Amino acid sequence: MPELVSHPIVSTSQEIASVCQAASQAAQPYAALPARDRARFLDRIAQQLECLGEALLQTANRETSLPLARLTGERSRACAQLRMFGALIRHDAWLDVRIEPGDPARHPVAKLDLRRTQIPLGPVAVFAASNFPFAFSVPGGDTASALAAGCPVVVKAHPGHPETSRLAAEAILRAARDCGVPEGTFGIVWGGPETGRALALDNNVYAVGFTGSLRAGRTLFDLAAGRRRPIPVYAEMGSVNPLFVLPGALVARGEALAQGYSDSLSLGAGQFCTNPGVLVGLEGLAFETLIDNVAERLKRIDPSPMLYDGICDAYVAGIGRLYEDRRLVCHFASDGTAAALFSVDAATFLSDPILREELFGPAAIAVRCVNLDQMRQVAEVLEGQLTATVHFEDSDVEAVRMLLPNLVRMAGRIVANGFPTGVEVSPAMQHGGPFPATTDSRSTSVGTAAILRFVRPVAFQDFPSSMLPTELRYGELAEFPA
Amino acid sequence: MPELVSHPIVSTSQEIASVCQAASQAAQPYAALPARDRARFLDRIAQQLECLGEALLQTANRETSLPLARLTGERSRACAQLRMFGALIRHDAWLDVRIEPGDPARHPVAKLDLRRTQIPLGPVAVFAASNFPFAFSVPGGDTASALAAGCPVVVKAHPGHPETSRLAAEAILRAARDCGVPEGTFGIVWGGPETGRALALDNNVYAVGFTGSLRAGRTLFDLAAGRRRPIPVYAEMGSVNPLFVLPGALVARGEALAQGYSDSLSLGAGQFCTNPGVLVGLEGLAFETLIDNVAERLKRIDPSPMLYDGICDAYVAGIGRLYEDRRLVCHFASDGTAAALFSVDAATFLSDPILREELFGPAAIAVRCVNLDQMRQVAEVLEGQLTATVHFEDSDVEAVRMLLPNLVRMAGRIVANGFPTGVEVSPAMQHGGPFPATTDSRSTSVGTAAILRFVRPVAFQDFPSSMLPTELRYGELAEFPA
Repeated sequence: MPELVSHPIVSTSQEIASVCQAASQAAQPYAALPARDRARFLDRIAQQLECLGEALLQTANRETSLPLARLTGERSRACAQLRMFGALIRHDAWLDVRIEPGDPARHPVAKLDLRRTQIPLGPVAVFAASNFPFAFSVPGGDTASALAAGCPVVVKAHPGHPETSRLAAEAILRAARDCGVPEGTFGIVWGGPETGRALALDNNVYAVGFTGSLRAGRTLFDLAAGRRRPIPVYAEMGSVNPLFVLPGALVARGEALAQGYSDSLSLGAGQFCTNPGVLVGLEGLAFETLIDNVAERLKRIDPSPMLYDGICDAYVAGIGRLYEDRRLVCHFASDGTAAALFSVDAATFLSDPILREELFGPAAIAVRCVNLDQMRQVAEVLEGQLTATVHFEDSDVEAVRMLLPNLVRMAGRIVANGFPTGVEVSPAMQHGGPFPATTDSRSTSVGTAAILRFVRPVAFQDFPSSMLPTELRYGELAEFPA
Repeated sequence: MPELVSHPIVSTSQEIASVCQAASQAAQPYAALPARDRARFLDRIAQQLECLGEALLQTANRETSLPLARLTGERSRACAQLRMFGALIRHDAWLDVRIEPGDPARHPVAKLDLRRTQIPLGPVAVFAASNFPFAFSVPGGDTASALAAGCPVVVKAHPGHPETSRLAAEAILRAARDCGVPEGTFGIVWGGPETGRALALDNNVYAVGFTGSLRAGRTLFDLAAGRRRPIPVYAEMGSVNPLFVLPGALVARGEALAQGYSDSLSLGAGQFCTNPGVLVGLEGLAFETLIDNVAERLKRIDPSPMLYDGICDAYVAGIGRLYEDRRLVCHFASDGTAAALFSVDAATFLSDPILREELFGPAAIAVRCVNLDQMRQVAEVLEGQLTATVHFEDSDVEAVRMLLPNLVRMAGRIVANGFPTGVEVSPAMQHGGPFPATTDSRSTSVGTAAILRFVRPVAFQDFPSSMLPTELRYGELAEFPA
């Protein structure tokens, strides 16, 4: 998404360096805190955010145009997320501890005592998103999971909601003071791409968490990979989240599909990374009816204000380009920020990668396939996605089996007979996917597994119990000293 | 390590593309094989390698100059490694399966059925190492773990041992035929850096495993990061594996330390990535005695032939540079490939990063610190390592506590009162570490956790049991169709 650069607060490069330096100095003492103290800190952040009451919500509403009901829910989600990571680290299970007691009698070579756990990577730079001022921003999932892992955090606030960011940052700093967390464990910097660049290149930063556009995410990835000491970048970027409708489902539940799809597409003015922007079906009356029904419903939805002028401008321009594209049929579009629906034949969709790119907002392209094999080709040509969805009935099982390998290949989450918006914050969630959905398909930015992005394994060989991290002090111990 | 380029076999770019294309076509059918069939394949590879008997060992001995006893042990290790991954995937535990049954009654939003498992990344390019013709080469750990994960493998044979590579590749292909594994699941390409470059850039390759020099590893990392669709590179590169000797240990076990250290340093002509090339102690009579005793022992060891002319030339040149460096004291060195020991004061060592670079071979620098604080500074300045070792007695506990955070920061494995050579192949092993030891500190190239390098998570939402991967078919299931 485009970033506002007009906001007056921009951190100087000295300020950025000094916040990162403070994070670096906090890294060892913060990592050394007992996990229950880090958990208390996370709980306390949630509490402090709640204490800000209506004032925080009003500020966010003013800055982002998101409705109060949505913001209320999002703050609850952010607080629940902080507490979820707190609960997670109160037990050691997430550390994947592996303990092998020594065996001096083993032949031909004695077996040494070997114990493996995970340690924090070091300070993490978190790039806040525009579309979730709480849950993917200053006090969001990246911050919560990095702090849970034992890493200090430096957030680059999103320029679209500076006051919301400042209030949240102050809440985190109050929580840090309340809990006696080392100074420097949390810091915040301000500005646009230049601030981001300085942060990604700072020598005290050991990993990057990012939510935003493909362009910005890729830039950060390239900067981080080009460093003398490269660092991992977890960038969650774009996705068109294709939704495949098989013939049986179309016949059995055409009305429900139209309702569910138009709701999912227009939710939050389409400003979700799981927004289902591509609808794939077999050409014919049933699919045309679905398209018409979706268009009918979209017409009835009042356009919501979008997050920022930049996003709005990009959306309107994108709709304009689609409208002028002679290959597409326009079923509904306006010159404002209303939802929009176009359609195209699969042959054209297959031939032009531009039609497969994300347009951030409530716009969709319906793709008509001449047969199931062409639908398989559409699945084959789509690049990495956060989600892929398929609607089917009993009679469609063979077709699902044919599509499924490609849905699994392309996406991090595969949805059956549902809609991709609505991302559960839970252990089994996978919110990620192959490039260009993210820069690291091996990770998730939502759910408990997100903590694994910010740790690395370490094995201790033959250490006395008293010197080991507490989670390794089990089983038969090495003698001291060996 | 430098690579021979004189060997006549070099794959053409067409050959490389066609081997990768075949791997790509095998990816889905191979991933779809039941895990027990992949396990059988791994077992069968081990069996086929054993069936090659003495002939394989003789060939490797002729090509690498490694002694037969070492090669016998290394083949056993490679076979045990293949069988270990076979045993690992016969059970689902490694998949970190997370199952959340749905709850339609949840308020305010129904909970959907969510099930998370791991799927293979796709074809993996494995770059064979020179120093382990079996265990880190064609049938080595990268191949075994990638095949276990469900990924096809394309190996770039090391030009230093082509016949050994050919025999091993044929053994794998025989095992594949015996087990009905899809054609293309295993392939091999030949050549030097140009072949490696083509492989890392091939669009059908989804990850890279590499063991070798910092220069070659970094080049592969940069190529892979610069692709339109970046791919992960697991490059295990250089390390000086510092060994810190605390005063109590020096007094209590000086003789044993000298013996253990010189054995570890000269093992296999020092051609191990865990070779302890830096010895750190407090200046004074006890440390001088240790240095003298190590030098005495090194003098008595007959120089072993090194792997290849290139490695040998680089080692001899490196020793020459150290010998001519006026800041160093030479305790023992020859103009051949014998072990060598130099010493330097910590202030000089701290000031010059070149002294902290790996010299591949049996050479070490002893570093004299004026006090424990300077020793801590040495620990602080060292970059990423595969291992860090500390020798201590009861009286040294405070000093260990001071050093330990930095040892943990720099290394993947921390050794107490032992020596870093000898890498156990087991679940608790961590063979990896921060850059420049590897390009991905979050991974290990030895032990069962190595399989995690080649998978990514996928969540299935609301799918009927019959369409799920078998490991997800537990618990209360969603109705079908939803």
